[in-house]
Amino acid sequence: MASVDYPDPVRRLVAQLKQLPGIGPKSAERIAVWLIQSGAETSLPLAESLIAAAREVTECRTCGFFATEEDGCAICEGEHREGQLLCIVEQPTDILPLERSGAFRGHYHSLRGRISPLDNIGPEDLRIGELVKRIDEGDFVEIILALSSDVEGEATCHYLAELLGGLAPLRVSRLAQGLPAGGGLNNADELTLLRALQGRVGV
Amino acid sequence: MASVDYPDPVRRLVAQLKQLPGIGPKSAERIAVWLIQSGAETSLPLAESLIAAAREVTECRTCGFFATEEDGCAICEGEHREGQLLCIVEQPTDILPLERSGAFRGHYHSLRGRISPLDNIGPEDLRIGELVKRIDEGDFVEIILALSSDVEGEATCHYLAELLGGLAPLRVSRLAQGLPAGGGLNNADELTLLRALQGRVGV
Repeated sequence: MASVDYPDPVRRLVAQLKQLPGIGPKSAERIAVWLIQSGAETSLPLAESLIAAAREVTECRTCGFFATEEDGCAICEGEHREGQLLCIVEQPTDILPLERSGAFRGHYHSLRGRISPLDNIGPEDLRIGELVKRIDEGDFVEIILALSSDVEGEATCHYLAELLGGLAPLRVSRLAQGLPAGGGLNNADELTLLRALQGRVGV
Repeated sequence: MASVDYPDPVRRLVAQLKQLPGIGPKSAERIAVWLIQSGAETSLPLAESLIAAAREVTECRTCGFFATEEDGCAICEGEHREGQLLCIVEQPTDILPLERSGAFRGHYHSLRGRISPLDNIGPEDLRIGELVKRIDEGDFVEIILALSSDVEGEATCHYLAELLGGLAPLRVSRLAQGLPAGGGLNNADELTLLRALQGRVGV
């Protein structure tokens, strides 16, 4: 039996969409069909945004946040930054949530990942050389490790604590672990409860 | 406090992605960041597929399936079609699953939707005029209504059965309802069981 399939341009679009994170074959097909049925007035602006983002958005050479040639980096060139604090994050996308918390107004440094032997990612694949150079040349007094509390985040944390610990009088700290805000005890796993107990504070 | 946000091109890309079906604000941000970090070699082919699909893919004027100027319609111009059977579907995307079942080799007609008063979609918004013209001019002996078995699909089914019922000696049929293949009784809802009992067949 001769098999019938979508025309080539539809299949190519589905194949491209399927690569995106969190998009499976079914979603890719649904999105492709929706885009084709919505017509050029929907597809072309999306295509233009993709091209503009690919052309204009770069990584800030200092902190690793997204920057553009035109506007520079909103973090490094922002006003009222506390120059003596440096917060280390895994990804540039971790910066905005910390900014929005309103609790930190220092500088940031994105590592562009974390140490993960299973994925063949070692310290040399991260922006750690840039970090050491930046600390050497800057006048930071405290480095805050704001990394994930999973295995890879912990490993990266230990590596950095050891690496930066020698650079006295630099203080190295990390985010507190404990109950998430609004979370009840019955929803917390054992490790979270252990950490919350270990890190208990006076009232 | 001055608020920090992503650069404009990133925010525009997120806004465009957020429009896609099944993509919420969090997924849109995740996909945008992934695309930017993957670089131009990922974003530009996706942009090109979007532009190609928007430019090249059209709706077949006869059946409503996707077609291209270059290759025409794979359904209407396909070989070994049974010319006397016409299967009516809601969307062009319903055609391939029916083809893949291998149980039907006739022609198709996509309505481009179904009657849905809540969404302000009436018969005049669907490809029903084209359908009547096609039946008038063709030599079909059976019309198979392959519509959804939900409220809107049923309403569309009734409307079409009434409209086409007068065109004797045309036979109008619809898909059987009953237990899905591989489905146990305990997973079937009451309406499905009712339909399965009503439609029972001799063994």
